Amino acid sequence: MKEILENSMGIQKVLNEVLTDISPTDSEKEELTLFSNAVLHKLKSISEYPILDIIQVGSTARNANLKNDHDIDIFLRFERNTERETLKEVGLRVGKEVIDYFGGISWLEYAEHPYISGKIGKFSLDIVPCYKIENCEKIISAVDRTPLHNEFLVLASLKTDISNEVRLLKKFLKGLSIYGSDLKTAGFSGYLCELLILKYGSFLNLLNDVKTWKLKKVIVLDEIYEMYGLKNDHKFLEFNDSLIVYDPVDLNRNVAAALSLENYCKFIFYSKMFLMNPNKEFFYNFEKKTINKLNERSHGYFLTIEIKRPENVVEDIVYPQMEKLQKSINKLIKEHDFDYLRYTNFADEKVCYLSWEFLVHELPDVKLRVGPPVSSSFGVLNFIKNNEKYFVSGCNVCAYKNRKYKNVQILFNNIVNGKLKGQITYPKYICPENALINIGTFVERI
Amino acid sequence: MKEILENSMGIQKVLNEVLTDISPTDSEKEELTLFSNAVLHKLKSISEYPILDIIQVGSTARNANLKNDHDIDIFLRFERNTERETLKEVGLRVGKEVIDYFGGISWLEYAEHPYISGKIGKFSLDIVPCYKIENCEKIISAVDRTPLHNEFLVLASLKTDISNEVRLLKKFLKGLSIYGSDLKTAGFSGYLCELLILKYGSFLNLLNDVKTWKLKKVIVLDEIYEMYGLKNDHKFLEFNDSLIVYDPVDLNRNVAAALSLENYCKFIFYSKMFLMNPNKEFFYNFEKKTINKLNERSHGYFLTIEIKRPENVVEDIVYPQMEKLQKSINKLIKEHDFDYLRYTNFADEKVCYLSWEFLVHELPDVKLRVGPPVSSSFGVLNFIKNNEKYFVSGCNVCAYKNRKYKNVQILFNNIVNGKLKGQITYPKYICPENALINIGTFVERI
Repeated sequence: MKEILENSMGIQKVLNEVLTDISPTDSEKEELTLFSNAVLHKLKSISEYPILDIIQVGSTARNANLKNDHDIDIFLRFERNTERETLKEVGLRVGKEVIDYFGGISWLEYAEHPYISGKIGKFSLDIVPCYKIENCEKIISAVDRTPLHNEFLVLASLKTDISNEVRLLKKFLKGLSIYGSDLKTAGFSGYLCELLILKYGSFLNLLNDVKTWKLKKVIVLDEIYEMYGLKNDHKFLEFNDSLIVYDPVDLNRNVAAALSLENYCKFIFYSKMFLMNPNKEFFYNFEKKTINKLNERSHGYFLTIEIKRPENVVEDIVYPQMEKLQKSINKLIKEHDFDYLRYTNFADEKVCYLSWEFLVHELPDVKLRVGPPVSSSFGVLNFIKNNEKYFVSGCNVCAYKNRKYKNVQILFNNIVNGKLKGQITYPKYICPENALINIGTFVERI
Repeated sequence: MKEILENSMGIQKVLNEVLTDISPTDSEKEELTLFSNAVLHKLKSISEYPILDIIQVGSTARNANLKNDHDIDIFLRFERNTERETLKEVGLRVGKEVIDYFGGISWLEYAEHPYISGKIGKFSLDIVPCYKIENCEKIISAVDRTPLHNEFLVLASLKTDISNEVRLLKKFLKGLSIYGSDLKTAGFSGYLCELLILKYGSFLNLLNDVKTWKLKKVIVLDEIYEMYGLKNDHKFLEFNDSLIVYDPVDLNRNVAAALSLENYCKFIFYSKMFLMNPNKEFFYNFEKKTINKLNERSHGYFLTIEIKRPENVVEDIVYPQMEKLQKSINKLIKEHDFDYLRYTNFADEKVCYLSWEFLVHELPDVKLRVGPPVSSSFGVLNFIKNNEKYFVSGCNVCAYKNRKYKNVQILFNNIVNGKLKGQITYPKYICPENALINIGTFVERI
């Protein structure tokens, strides 16, 4: 009991210190509010039909942002029957006009449809057009749910101020490199963080529950039952994800769908670790420092292939495709009996790097092929037809074969010269042909 | 149908040719009979109480021997209450006397009890004392069943002459190196061969059935039901062996108990091969030629340890103990992530050789240890206590460890200098300490 108390006093001290680091100062908050209001005011004055309303969303709109986060996200909600072209044209024009008005610079960003991004002094702005829909209605464009998320969170957090707890959680997840629902990170979105804190009340309560989580943890907020008048035994749609958090604005959506199994497990593991040994370290580049520490050891045989990154292909496409390609190559590596300790992929602006650390990269020019049991008549006939040096070992007919690839480098030579095209799944944009092979190099994902 | 006929005509031609090679000539048979009768006659004249009767056993007694097999086995059956010492003393004295009488040389051989072995001209003699027991009675000394086997076979083969079919089967099994129920060979005894031919009538009928055999084939001779007046649904004792052939003189004994799983499977496999492609080759050192052919290939990394063979320890003890020691070392090899293509053991008069052909014998100084799933609380705590460089991979906590043995030779150094004593099962007579390590050598079993 004494130990627990000491521990929890320790934790509170750690959390307070972190909070001091990461909370925006009062003047910072005030400055942000004044500036956002000015932008909103201007936007409203120049807005026109079919724009129905203008809503600030994102963490800065809800006082859930970290210090030095000056991202202002504003959504222009259009009438649902608006043509796509009109939405795009009006959205871009209005966005550009307001940024010009404040003397900022602006450019186009591309998601499902283009929107205006800009910089005014230290503030970053995204001005995004979307359709106005209602809760649980089908979305028309990919971003239509965001204003509803904002409305829900604003309403739900009226009762109690959860902003500091949300900040702690975000910072903790950032330290573990699992904050962000983009497909490179495959972690937790900001919205997911806020829902988790709403559910558990505080960062510590959440972690104390997380440490007991198993696979397929299901979370339904109390607010959902109230909003939709559901009974306690309501049957929700089932999802096949590691963590399932029902979206209060769309019950057919899992807010944690982008979270990978490994990152879900990291969250459980590091929750335990933090509670056992509360330390500020966890909040500050913990994962990156861990990787560096893990690399202070003897190494296997490094091999990296460098593939030219195609132009204008965004991270959310590049990363899943690198993973897909690498997994397909991994299958081939294993088929040829090579053994690796780990693999990873990373893309900078120009190059996609697929790296492996091999344990075994060279094998003798002979392999053992284990065939069917001697009692399987057809299998045995087929096997001896295709294998010359056969014999009986245990219950099976076996054979010695010449090995196709004695060295993993020869296998990779055939990958990059396209000879193994039929045996590898080439994703649409990332093609291993003509890649460079770098022996002795391993590129960590950063 | 035409193909089958051609095949079977081909088979009959092959079998006839083999039979001509392996059957004793008429003059050879006559000479053997005359000489055996002379020995029996002499033995009877000098025999005394408690010897009850004198019986010639073995293949030469039943015209089931191969050409140039001049082994004459004679059993002296003693009254069941005879003291061991008397049995030994009288057995040795009578045996020596008869060999002296014929001008041969004699010496002691050791099984469970000593007996006289001798050479008279081209004939080899074993004169073995045993106790006279009845069918299904408990044996008193290890060899007491042999005369009963002989009686059964003589009686059973009165109806039809199976001698040539038995010879074919023995020669076929010899060609495959699976003839002999000693613990080095772990194959088929001569008695087992004769029972199998009694059951199936001919060598070809037997092979045609063998090709359909699965594990745990059970064979009960019709004679057994007749001898003991058993019903068709009689429940016999169950055995956990690959092949079960009930001994007509002791229903609680499996005649095929010494047959190893692998040799049973070889019999099935090569029966198929022979029927598909009938060829004299199978009967003449086929297995040895196969091993030579298999060795015409690239090789892995050979390593042999040479252990001094203890004096006066017979093959039936040496071979199981070498196998036991090697299997125990194999466990250790695998625990340290080394991978071998094959292993074998062989003993000559002075040395026990344990050989391995390694695929991988060198590894980097790092290994991956996969720990428990992150959700297992106790397991995780224990794992991180014992491992420094831990991380989450997939659902598990894992760690990088320094490898204890980077090269398999270092592992073997610690085996022969006794440092791994606690981790290896040392059999009674074969101790790996102070063994020589030979890199680049593989000793085949011959």
